Amino acid sequence: MQILKDIEAIVGTKGILTGNDVANRKAGIWIDEGIKAKAIVRPKNTEELSKVLKICNEKKQPVVPHGGLTGLAEGAITLEGQIAISTERLNEIETIDTVGRTITLGAGVQLEKAQNKAEENNLMLAVDLGARGSCTIGGNISTNAGGNMVVKYGMTRDSVLGLEAVLADGRIVTSLNEMLKNNSGYDLKQLFIGTEGTLGFVTRAVLRLREKPKSTNTALLAVNSFTQVTQFLKHIDRGLGGNLSAFEVMWEDFYKQVTTEPALNSPPLSQGFPYYVLVESTGSNQQKDSEHFEELLEEALNLEIIEDAVVSKSDSDRSNLWAIRDDVEQHYQDGPVKMFDVSMPILSMEKYITDVHEKFSENWETYKCVVFGHLADGNLHVVSGVGSDDDESIRKMESCIYDPLKSIGGAVSAEHGIGLEKKDYLGISRTEIEIDIMRTLKKSLDPNNILNPGKVFD
Amino acid sequence: MQILKDIEAIVGTKGILTGNDVANRKAGIWIDEGIKAKAIVRPKNTEELSKVLKICNEKKQPVVPHGGLTGLAEGAITLEGQIAISTERLNEIETIDTVGRTITLGAGVQLEKAQNKAEENNLMLAVDLGARGSCTIGGNISTNAGGNMVVKYGMTRDSVLGLEAVLADGRIVTSLNEMLKNNSGYDLKQLFIGTEGTLGFVTRAVLRLREKPKSTNTALLAVNSFTQVTQFLKHIDRGLGGNLSAFEVMWEDFYKQVTTEPALNSPPLSQGFPYYVLVESTGSNQQKDSEHFEELLEEALNLEIIEDAVVSKSDSDRSNLWAIRDDVEQHYQDGPVKMFDVSMPILSMEKYITDVHEKFSENWETYKCVVFGHLADGNLHVVSGVGSDDDESIRKMESCIYDPLKSIGGAVSAEHGIGLEKKDYLGISRTEIEIDIMRTLKKSLDPNNILNPGKVFD
Repeated sequence: MQILKDIEAIVGTKGILTGNDVANRKAGIWIDEGIKAKAIVRPKNTEELSKVLKICNEKKQPVVPHGGLTGLAEGAITLEGQIAISTERLNEIETIDTVGRTITLGAGVQLEKAQNKAEENNLMLAVDLGARGSCTIGGNISTNAGGNMVVKYGMTRDSVLGLEAVLADGRIVTSLNEMLKNNSGYDLKQLFIGTEGTLGFVTRAVLRLREKPKSTNTALLAVNSFTQVTQFLKHIDRGLGGNLSAFEVMWEDFYKQVTTEPALNSPPLSQGFPYYVLVESTGSNQQKDSEHFEELLEEALNLEIIEDAVVSKSDSDRSNLWAIRDDVEQHYQDGPVKMFDVSMPILSMEKYITDVHEKFSENWETYKCVVFGHLADGNLHVVSGVGSDDDESIRKMESCIYDPLKSIGGAVSAEHGIGLEKKDYLGISRTEIEIDIMRTLKKSLDPNNILNPGKVFD
Repeated sequence: MQILKDIEAIVGTKGILTGNDVANRKAGIWIDEGIKAKAIVRPKNTEELSKVLKICNEKKQPVVPHGGLTGLAEGAITLEGQIAISTERLNEIETIDTVGRTITLGAGVQLEKAQNKAEENNLMLAVDLGARGSCTIGGNISTNAGGNMVVKYGMTRDSVLGLEAVLADGRIVTSLNEMLKNNSGYDLKQLFIGTEGTLGFVTRAVLRLREKPKSTNTALLAVNSFTQVTQFLKHIDRGLGGNLSAFEVMWEDFYKQVTTEPALNSPPLSQGFPYYVLVESTGSNQQKDSEHFEELLEEALNLEIIEDAVVSKSDSDRSNLWAIRDDVEQHYQDGPVKMFDVSMPILSMEKYITDVHEKFSENWETYKCVVFGHLADGNLHVVSGVGSDDDESIRKMESCIYDPLKSIGGAVSAEHGIGLEKKDYLGISRTEIEIDIMRTLKKSLDPNNILNPGKVFD
């Protein structure tokens, strides 16, 4: 194919994979199938990518950006006629500024590598998620990744100070701002954050770093009602004065399964409470902060907002508490399930979950529907199973989960993105006018529709 | 004029001002002249505004959004043939959600009114600036206002969860998201934040609120070198574990003038040190936090990073320390001056200020050039005067201040915006490709160029 020859002339033989070298790579770390694509192109710098995209644009050749392929919304799926462009050779950490607290790096750098670089300099990158060892900074940015630190530090968007991206026509947009404040014209980086590679291809970034916290306090609480969960959120958030760094809630059935054999964890608090909260605070002085943290829990017990508490006294205690929250796989053992990622105002959650159960029970005699999530961010995950994962069952489950979001202003994707997977449901969370504007932006920046076409919306 | 009649038919007589009712209003709170415009239109809701814009778009009638008119970059200046559209009747606080910690309100609500509403509910709106009593939420959003809390809470952008805006053609984009996490499609609100009313007219917003801090600690420090200023920034930021809420630096000559008669403040620390730092922390427990804050200052003294310190022991102490930092008007007493608002990497600041002084001294035998600012955000303000404020002098001063920013990746506007005032200098901070993309966005969303035309770029 001529286009592949033209591309090879730009990137060299090392820069392009075809045939089995493509098919032997898995299409995603959660997907068993191999990648379907004409080729995987691996530019070694922005200039090469620019030239490649220029050709693809002229030939109307669709391309799909590939990072760590850890996404959960089918945002990096390729079709046979498409070309995947991988950031794997754009993987240099360029500079770290310990005074300005910034790191400048290539889109292909793995999140964990960037985290480690920050750590070595007594700093912290405030983006963290389970896939840290595989996912890339470019992917984190393109999907505006969430994770466990959002309540304190925000989404990935909030850690991005500057970006470089290549437009569909090959133009390089270098906006590598390093400052917290820059109101010089439109903030163009927002076009490339969370837009899943549909408006431009992120090649480099400047990320904000923070001074590394000197203390961590963690506890697991048992709570009797949803109202008390919200009271406890306010109590602990106010009490910690901005240092609340995680507020994870597990519904009763989630907790039961992850603390019952064959799960490896035993229950640090007895089973049977309606809600369990994993709360964490980071701060500046371990002794003072621990005292204060425990006083706040004492107060909550005395106020009868919480029923019981276990406080981590060591790193291994902390790991054990998080292991319970993170052992989502337990819910995959009784047949096929699907994990949902939705968000909504906290005050709507209790009713929403009731409505979802009602819808499931209208459709199926037995079903699984366990709930957990980053409650303070409005983000719930629901693991649902109805015994079968044929298309019709999936569609029906999706309808049960997504439909009730519309009337409460909820989102069909809180942190995973839309990709192909949720495209049909975008209209639940966004108006026709909003989707029209998305199309307007897409058309104005990628008139030939070559950048990750068909993702997010049609 | 037919268009004014058509508009009056939509908004009623109360909704439109003409003639002296226009001219008698000041064009800005810092401007002596009256407003020049065909009319000031005051829609009472989004629907009225939508109809007005639809007519203006059809007739290619330029409009300029008006909030509190406190902007510092001529972003709301109108020409005689233009129509000003004021948010003054879109001034309702609609709801406050104390669990989700959000406030939903009209664009015309004054910042201070929103702050007070939050306070009444034991919450805090983390946007604050000097003009709080006059500026509006819509203006804060359209200019992405900065202020004194950015190092802890970010710019206005970081407090905006959802928006409603009207496009040039009258379409209403309602994206009143209430969640911290929502990755359902493009984050369209970014189009309307910091774009100075050129892409859409903000009518309503959902803002994030925080639990109100329970403690405040404030100190003024004297520091011997710029390197020590940066060492102290890292020391205190790390030591406070995320609770650093302000880090304001005054250069020697700034401090001298604001603590010498006729200034009302006396110097709490002796004059003559090269730098003075006003540092503030907010937290959760006044006693514990004060102890910890003072220990950190002790450490800094022992490490000889700082030379002297005075710690606020009361609200009035705190007010007095801030009064020194805020008494910028002292620098206006010796003839005409211009205040600049720039940002740059912290590590480039010392050299930048040296370069600026060199440029001034090449051009003028005597001049004023005093420096202060939100150093941790990379943001400096420079008050400059050369004895005359004729156009040529202003242009020469601008050149001295802006030209050296180019090579260090600095910004000609850190927090004030571009408006008309800095339009000619946008190219110092942004590339031609970036400005082209801004034009592309403008054209695709406002093809008739009716929304605040001529602002930010041509």
